[in-house]
Parts: sequence; structure tokens; C-alpha cells
Amino acid sequence: SSIEKQLQAAITGGSRAGSLSRDAFRQAVGNTLERRLFYIPSFKIYRGVAGLYDYGPPGCAVKANVLAFWRQHFVLEENMLEVDCPCVTPEVVLKASGHVDKFTDLMVKDEKTGTCYRADHLLKDFCKDKLEKDLSMPAEKAAELKNILAVLDEFSAEELGAKIKEYGITAPETKNPLSDPYPFNLMFQTSIGPSGLISGFMRPETAQGIFVNFKDLYYFNGNKLPFAAAQIGQAFRNEISPRQGLLRVREFTLAEIEHFVDPEDKSHPKFIDVAHLEFLMFPRKEQTSGQSAKRMCIGDAVSEGIVNNQTLGYFIARVYLFLTQLGIDKERLRFRQHLANEMAHYAADCWDAEIECSYGWIECVGIADRSAYDLRAHSEKSGVSLVAQEKFSEPKEVEKLVIAPTKKELGLAFKANQKNVLEALEAMDEKEAMEMKSALESQGEVEFHVCTLGKAVTIKKNMVTISKETKKEYQRVFTPSVIEPSFGIGRIIYCLYEHSFYTRPSKAGDEQLNVFRFPSLVAPIKCTVFPLVQNQQYEQIAKQISLSLTAAGISHKIDITGTSIGKRYARTDELGVPLAITVDSTSSVTIRERDSKDQIRVSIEAVASVVKEVTDGSSTWTDVMWRFPTHTNASTDE
Amino acid sequence: SSIEKQLQAAITGGSRAGSLSRDAFRQAVGNTLERRLFYIPSFKIYRGVAGLYDYGPPGCAVKANVLAFWRQHFVLEENMLEVDCPCVTPEVVLKASGHVDKFTDLMVKDEKTGTCYRADHLLKDFCKDKLEKDLSMPAEKAAELKNILAVLDEFSAEELGAKIKEYGITAPETKNPLSDPYPFNLMFQTSIGPSGLISGFMRPETAQGIFVNFKDLYYFNGNKLPFAAAQIGQAFRNEISPRQGLLRVREFTLAEIEHFVDPEDKSHPKFIDVAHLEFLMFPRKEQTSGQSAKRMCIGDAVSEGIVNNQTLGYFIARVYLFLTQLGIDKERLRFRQHLANEMAHYAADCWDAEIECSYGWIECVGIADRSAYDLRAHSEKSGVSLVAQEKFSEPKEVEKLVIAPTKKELGLAFKANQKNVLEALEAMDEKEAMEMKSALESQGEVEFHVCTLGKAVTIKKNMVTISKETKKEYQRVFTPSVIEPSFGIGRIIYCLYEHSFYTRPSKAGDEQLNVFRFPSLVAPIKCTVFPLVQNQQYEQIAKQISLSLTAAGISHKIDITGTSIGKRYARTDELGVPLAITVDSTSSVTIRERDSKDQIRVSIEAVASVVKEVTDGSSTWTDVMWRFPTHTNASTDE
Repeated sequence: SSIEKQLQAAITGGSRAGSLSRDAFRQAVGNTLERRLFYIPSFKIYRGVAGLYDYGPPGCAVKANVLAFWRQHFVLEENMLEVDCPCVTPEVVLKASGHVDKFTDLMVKDEKTGTCYRADHLLKDFCKDKLEKDLSMPAEKAAELKNILAVLDEFSAEELGAKIKEYGITAPETKNPLSDPYPFNLMFQTSIGPSGLISGFMRPETAQGIFVNFKDLYYFNGNKLPFAAAQIGQAFRNEISPRQGLLRVREFTLAEIEHFVDPEDKSHPKFIDVAHLEFLMFPRKEQTSGQSAKRMCIGDAVSEGIVNNQTLGYFIARVYLFLTQLGIDKERLRFRQHLANEMAHYAADCWDAEIECSYGWIECVGIADRSAYDLRAHSEKSGVSLVAQEKFSEPKEVEKLVIAPTKKELGLAFKANQKNVLEALEAMDEKEAMEMKSALESQGEVEFHVCTLGKAVTIKKNMVTISKETKKEYQRVFTPSVIEPSFGIGRIIYCLYEHSFYTRPSKAGDEQLNVFRFPSLVAPIKCTVFPLVQNQQYEQIAKQISLSLTAAGISHKIDITGTSIGKRYARTDELGVPLAITVDSTSSVTIRERDSKDQIRVSIEAVASVVKEVTDGSSTWTDVMWRFPTHTNASTDE
Repeated sequence: SSIEKQLQAAITGGSRAGSLSRDAFRQAVGNTLERRLFYIPSFKIYRGVAGLYDYGPPGCAVKANVLAFWRQHFVLEENMLEVDCPCVTPEVVLKASGHVDKFTDLMVKDEKTGTCYRADHLLKDFCKDKLEKDLSMPAEKAAELKNILAVLDEFSAEELGAKIKEYGITAPETKNPLSDPYPFNLMFQTSIGPSGLISGFMRPETAQGIFVNFKDLYYFNGNKLPFAAAQIGQAFRNEISPRQGLLRVREFTLAEIEHFVDPEDKSHPKFIDVAHLEFLMFPRKEQTSGQSAKRMCIGDAVSEGIVNNQTLGYFIARVYLFLTQLGIDKERLRFRQHLANEMAHYAADCWDAEIECSYGWIECVGIADRSAYDLRAHSEKSGVSLVAQEKFSEPKEVEKLVIAPTKKELGLAFKANQKNVLEALEAMDEKEAMEMKSALESQGEVEFHVCTLGKAVTIKKNMVTISKETKKEYQRVFTPSVIEPSFGIGRIIYCLYEHSFYTRPSKAGDEQLNVFRFPSLVAPIKCTVFPLVQNQQYEQIAKQISLSLTAAGISHKIDITGTSIGKRYARTDELGVPLAITVDSTSSVTIRERDSKDQIRVSIEAVASVVKEVTDGSSTWTDVMWRFPTHTNASTDE
């Protein structure tokens, strides 16, 4: 459609005209979504709260369908252990995970009114605005601003503050001066219990609920690795100033997987099933060298070491299948690798599934190899050891270095310093120890530097015994690595709305009609049933068909309003309903497909099974078009 | 089983011995649930937080099944409008609903340590303990304590405080004196946005999200009544001191329905479909006269006026069907009507579905006719009118009283008092006004008492015109009544666990084995597949069967551990899995039913379809027992 073409132009061109049509497209989608109650600004009658939205009836159905497919595609097909933990979380857990200290954004305050802003947003807006409007800007200055936009995310509070001062940025509404930037924790805080003594937060992610349960889940899985746990649930971020509508909200549904794996073996038995898949990838190298995303085969990406390991690659591919089966356009989906400075220090590798919409490329799924960080952090803080064991099929003979200082001799020789010498001896690595051993054997004594004393001492043969002993080991104990695909369900759904939306002229050509081309999988209902005219006979047949649809498990609705059939089709297209059944005789009915507007004539007995096979994917519309007569009576369409 | 019989005895008897075996039963269920990860105390490695629990993998699956059935049984079958609103709620909404002022429990504090207790719990514990232990108590005293237990819920802060003082009740652990009782608000408080200026709470129920959306939902429904909206989601109550394990928690899943209906017509078109259903009801009269619950037909209960209206009756019956289909024992389910003093002043009628478990009769679903209270409260607070219109098919002629005072004459006669007289005249009801009219016509003047002046004045004929005029009305505008069935999903699930649990001796008779007799509908998985011995051929067949089960949409698990088949059966019985397939040959397999332990032999090709028809309810186990040979080889069972 023309709006789509405009959008495409806007996205590829990035011109000012482009950004206007991008806004127009966004507005067209948004209006339709809000008018048909896909979403509703929460607490609207009280003028709402920024960043909080309700799902209305069709939005709620789409969300339920997306979550059901997620469960099917990930939890059931991969035998994951699903858990469901509370949102209210005591401080100690989020202290261990690092959220209490680090889950912050930098904020500035209007020094007179106290209004708060995200510091990076103000700087970003300033640079963008300047670049767009100040056409006489020297090239050098423009390059400086562009560079700031590129590295903005890395700025410290001091750097941000310095730039805000340097450019004289003030509060947007009042032009008042701004405070220095300071960190604001994004968690909603509360207290648990009546005493006010237990501090708690609304969880910012669902992952921690899984980590703290690792021990039980590992046991439930028969003490075997790898296994994955999954959780779907609400998460909360008290954004400083939410923008970007449904994309940046203060409460949202996350679906997270924590796949626990032996750090020494991150292969995946089912990787072979997906290795052939090709899609847009945007590796680190291409980003830093100014190239664009490129089509790659995931098998190659793993074998060439671009993606760190098979398990990570497997999940990237599974996410690709998940999103495209939902209806995300594969040309507007890419997997972008985190740059080294974007990743947490402990992460082994991280890729974001980014979906392009009118707001640009949006991170919708993060797929990170977080190594052993989280389990180690909770082990340490809780004192409960969160580890796995690999039992050897037969005991392994392991050579171990044994350093046995003779305390009596050390005491006589070093008096008050004996403890420092003893610890230094025991701390020797294998190379040092074996050198000392041979030196003692050949020379009887050796000079030895003791860091904690800041000087060398003389070690004699009788002061320490160094040997290698062979020991039997029955198992290996280790902290598992975790690979975490984390899905922002609301963002995926919003992008899906944009990718599914198009307009087409009405038959009379006097208005543009809105359509969502949802796959049946996500459509809020699968079909509607329309008696062509208001008469009892047709309504009776509509009810009979409704019963057979219910028996076949197909969600549907009867529309018996007297509105023209064309208007009723338009209404159901706007909700993205794939099929419409029109009762126009007492023996057979027509089935109309939403996007082609093609109609076939089917007997009343067959209608439910035809709808079922098309909507459950066992037949395509083209398949059934071959089998049934086409219906072309203009009276039943627009 | 014997434990069940003991429980039965405990419940009916209520003796001390009984209460012991009740505890033993509860412990047996609880141990099994916790060991098999149906639930996990949240944040266990950090010693947990009272009142917060996770659902582990089987619990999560049971919950998902219960919610899916709820959606099927209520939302889809009744075409309800489902919505999904945030948990974070601004104060203004909960101020309007009354939660900010009234959602409290009375609390007392240990005056030295600051530990908090629910005042009513302490008084209840004191009375129970005394009644149980002080066997020499005079009858009069015992009656007094029993009376307190009966009316405890009605006590004001002052009454509770007086009793606590009178009986010398102290803090349970320290024996320190207690503070006076004071109200503690049970909502988790937080603040929204960075300024700290917008106060918010975690919602204590999901209903308010529906009420504030009434206008949009009514429009979505074509401005027609009745219709119902529904919501499933988390709700939060910051309990003072949670007790009763999984029954009183600080965060829980609610499923709520708000059925909006014309207050002048609460009939229900589908009531006739359920009117014949009979179940235990406990009307107000039976409660106050000391009788017990009795089996009643819901049709009679409505026609006799025991249940206020058809819609309320319809939902009571639908809740009965919902709970019993989940596996709740109908002998331990009753519908108890709220006593007049239990109900909110605005409520027309209210019934709780109570389920009996080891903690006694537990309120699991509340079904209330809340009249127009909530919509009126939000209309008033928000200034947005939340009403419905009934358009008349033709305009109605309505006779209206018109009182038209003549201001000039009133001014002349009453000077400074004219406003009081004028208002008093206008405020007359129809009867008063018509009496004045005829008095003025016959006598020319009349004495008229003006409250605000505290005296009578003389009204003359020229001071007021009273008449009746006929007006045309085109519609009626009114605030709908709402009938609210509200489901505590966690409580229902816990009661379901207790009603499904039983034990039976192992084959060797040396231990008791645990079984959950879940219906297939709620069982965490529908079947398990066991290769009888560890060999590649059998494992291959197990995988082939697994694929055919997946294709048929049946959740299942393969257990290839080398454990004895008896142990594996016991393991799967303990998770409540209805069927087990044992691969013991290369051509056919056995299917074993959990409760009867009967086995049949079925060909590998037929196995998935047999499992499907039994688990989706299209056949019973008895049906298929007739069609397939029984398998009796002892080697494959315990």
C-alpha cells in the first residue's frame, strides 16, 4: 500500500520528508489500535499515567495467542521447566543481582520546578535538533554532534553533565537551568510486612526468580545439565519520563528463558536442525567498520566464531523462527551483536533481535551468554552453593601439587614473620613450586621473595616439602553458564501491529480502510459469522455454524447488526480476523479471506472443517480455493 | 484411603484427635507438593519471605491448565470482553474505590520489640487455646469465649483493644505488653515516576481496571447491556502476618468477572440451562438459626427469592460447574450467603463458594451483586459519567410534576427569607405538592412549614403554580449494576491439591505411595512414556510415540532412567499424571491408568489416539478397557 511504501522510503531514506510519513504511518496504526481497543491508556478517565497501558479485548486475545505460541515453541518443544515467581522481591535478592546498585538512569532536574528528565534524552534531542535545523553548521561541529549520538550510551554522569553545560542545554518547557546528572534507580520500591523494615522492589525482570531456584530445579531435572527454566510474568521499570508509546512502559510482560549449560560444553544437540537458516545478522565487526547488517547462515556464524557457541546460535535461530511465524517481516528483523563496551564484563556474547518499526530499530529480544555471573552472585550472597556436578563414569587420576611447609622450622627461622612466609609458600603456583623443589634438591636452599614482607628470605630444604601426588577424583563440581533469551512481549506485539497494518481504498474509493494481516496464529478471533440480512432463518443458520465452530475449538463471533455487509467486512478486517462466513442461503454459505477478499462457496456442513484447516495451518487458502467454487456475487462484498 | 478417612472424621468430628490427623494429612500433602516442586517458598536460599510462594514446574502447569479452562468456561462461552491492566495503580483510583481508606486490618505492636500482629488473630488464638486447654472453665465463661469467636470479625478497634486488655493478652513470643489496635492499610505502596510526587499502590484486586474502562467497553459492545468484562492477573495484599501457608499470601492470581446489567432487569437468558442443578447452599437463614448447609436446586433458590436474581444464580451455578469439573469434591463445596452485617452497605446480595480443606471452610470464589456502587464512585471522582442508555423503541409519554414559584411575590412577602421559602417549595414531593395545589385552589392560601426557617409561613395562590405536564422521553439513562464473580486461583488450586491427594500402600506394603487423582483437564502432563528396560530399540519406539503424542497435542514426558518400572509409576502418580505408556515390545505397548492401575495393550500406531480420547474426555477409561486386551504381566507394574 502507499503508506507502507512511504514508510519504506522513510526508513531507507531517513530524510525529513521520510520522518514525516513515518509519523503519519505510526499515527494511522495508533489510531486504529486505540479506536478498536487493542490498547487503552490506563486509568484514562483520571487522565492516565505515563507509561501504563491496558490491553483491551482484541489486544488481550493477541497477547494470549502470542504467549500460548511462546509456551508451545519454547517450553513444550524444549521440555523447559516453567516457574512462576512473585513480583514483590526482597532487597537482598536484587542487591545480589546488582540491580539495587546499578539499575539506574542518569537524571537531571529543572532547578526551579523540580521536573525530572533523562539526561541522555536531553542531550540526544539537542544534537538531533541541531543537526536537523542548523544547516549552516560547520562540518567539524556536525561530526562532533554525530559522534556524541553514537557514544551517548557510554557517557558517565560527569561526561553528560559537562556536555549539557557546554551546550547550554536547559529544561525543555521552562528553559530553567538543570541540575547535574545523578543516578535514579528504576525499580519501584515498596516495603514488605507491617513493620516497614523489610525493603522490597517490584522485580525489574523475571530472571532472578529462576536463579534463586537453581538448586531445586537442577534436582528436579535429575541433577543433569543442560536444562532450561522459563518464566512468563510482569516486570516493572519506573522510567524517568516514558516516551515512544507502547515501546517504553513502566510495567510489561517478560518471557525469559535461563538455559543452564556446562561452560566446557556449549554444543547443542538440535543445532543441526537450524544450522541452515539464513537471516540478517549485524556482527560487531560490521558495526564498528560502518558496514550494514548482512544475510548470514547461522551455521556459518557459529563455525566462524562470530556467534560464540552452538547453544547461543540455536536460540538465535529459534527466536528467528518464533518472530517470523508470528508475522514479523523478516526483512525488518536483524540480530545485532553487542559491542564489547555494551556488554557486561562477565558476558561471553550477546545478540539482540531488533525489529524495525516507525521508531527505528527496536530491541525486542535479548539473547545473552551471561556465563556463571548470576549463580555465583547468589551463591556468594546467600551462602548456598549453586553448582552442578559431573560424575565421572570412572574415577579420574589427577596429579596434584602438594606444598607442605614445616611449621616448626619456619617458626624458628622467621619468628613473627613465619605466617607471611608460610602463606607465600602455599600460594606458589605449579611452576614456581617445581623450580623451588629442584633448587632445594640441588642447592639445599633458595632465596624466596615474600610480597607481604616486601623482601626475600632464605628457604632451606627442611622448611618445606614439595611433591606431586596422584589423587582419584570422582566428579567435577562447577558453576553452570547460563544462556538467557529474554523477550519483551509488549514490544514484539507492537512491532507486529506495525508490520501487519496496511490500508486499502474502499470500493467507492472515498476512504482508506484499515487491515491487520495477522496470521491465524495471532489473530484475536479466527472468523466472524454474518447473516447477510436480518432474518430469522439466516440467524438460525449462523447459530448452527457457531455451534460447529465451537465444537471445532475455533474462536469466532456472530455479527447480527443490520449494517451493510461491506461495512461489516471492513470492521472485521480492522481487527485482523482472517476469515468471514456470510450466511446468504439456507444450504451453503460463503467464506471470504481477509487479504485477497476472495470468496468461496461451501456447504453448511463443511464450513467448520474448512475454517479449521485454514486457520490451523494444515491447508492454505490457495489449497481450499481449488476445492470449492469461487463466489463472485458483488452483493456480498464491498 | 485411611488418611482420607481420618480427615473425614476430623472434619465432621472436630475433636482434638481429629485436628491432629487433619494436621497429619495437611503435612502429607504439603510434603509431597514441596518435594515435587508444585510450589517452592519464594527466595528460599535467602530464607524466604512470609506469604510469598513460587509455582514450580508441575504447579505452573496446573495453574496454566486451570486458567485456560477458566478462559474457556467463562470468557469464551459467554463472549466476555477480556482486558489486561497494570498492577501499578495511582492513588486516585483506589481512593475512589475506597481501598485507600478502608482496605485495612487492625494491628497491634509488641511495645518493646515493635513486632506486629493482627489483633483479631491474637484474640482468636487466646479464646481457642483457653477453650481447648482450660477444662475446668465455668460454662458461662466458655459461652462468652465462643461468642467472641463468632462475632470477632465485627469488632471495632476499640472493642478488640478492650478485650485484649480484659484478658491480659500479651505478645506471643516475648510476653511484652501490646499497643492499642490501629488500622494498617494492606496495600503495597510505591511512588510512580522520579519526582516521588505521584503516590501509587500495587492493586489489591483486578476489578478497578475494568470499572475505569466501562465507557470504552460499553462502546465496544455496541452500547448494549448486559455484557461482562473479565481479567486475570496478579493482585497484592501486604498481610500483617501471613498464616495458613498457600491460602493467605501477599501476592496472588485473581480471575475476576464484572457483569454489567440493567438494575431493572437482572434476568439471564441462559439461566434455564442451569436451573436444575443441585448443590450445597448455606443461606443466611440457615446460618443464623444454627442449621447446616442444605442441598438446594438453584432454580428454586432464585424463584423463592433466597438468591436475589437470575444473573447471580446463573453465575453461582457456573462456578459450581467450573469447580467440580476441575476436581473439587462436590461434598466439600458449599455456597454460603453473606450475613447482612458481612455485606457492604451497597451490595444487593453476596455468596461465597467455600471449599472445605484441612484449614476448614475456605472462601475461594466470591459472587457479589455490588449494585451500582463502583461505577458511581468512579463517575463522581473522575467527573466522567459512567452510565448506560436504554433507547425506547418509541418515545414514552411521562407525566412530570412542575413547581413554578413566582419570585416577585415571594420577594415581596418574605424579603430576606425568600430563598429559604423558594427552596422549600421546589423540594416538595409529588404528594405534598398536589395537596398544596388543591388547598390553594379551594382556600386561596395555606400554611407551609419551612425547615430551614424552623417555622411555618403562609403561601398564597399567586406565589406558586403547581401543575403536571406530559413530556416525551426518548431514552432512559442509568448506572448499570455489576455482578462480580471473583476467583482466588491459588486457593482453588490448593484445595484441589487436598481433594485430589490420597495414599496407598506399595506392592511390598512397606511404604505409603502418594497419588494426586487430577482430572486430565488439570494434570500437569497427560502421560509419561517409559521404555521398560534401557535398550536402544525401546528408546527408539518411545521417541516415535513421543512424536505422535506431540502431533496430537498431548503434553507428556519420556522417562528413560534405569529405575524400576514400579518406582517410575510411583513417581508419575505423585505428579498426578493420568496415563503411563510402557514400551515392553516392538509392536505394542501397555497403557496404565493411574487410579485403577489397570493396564491395556495397544498397538504402537493406536496409542496416541487412545491417549487423546481418554485425556480430552471423549472416552472414559472404562470405554477403552472394553476395546483393548487387558495386560496383567506383573513385571510391568509395582
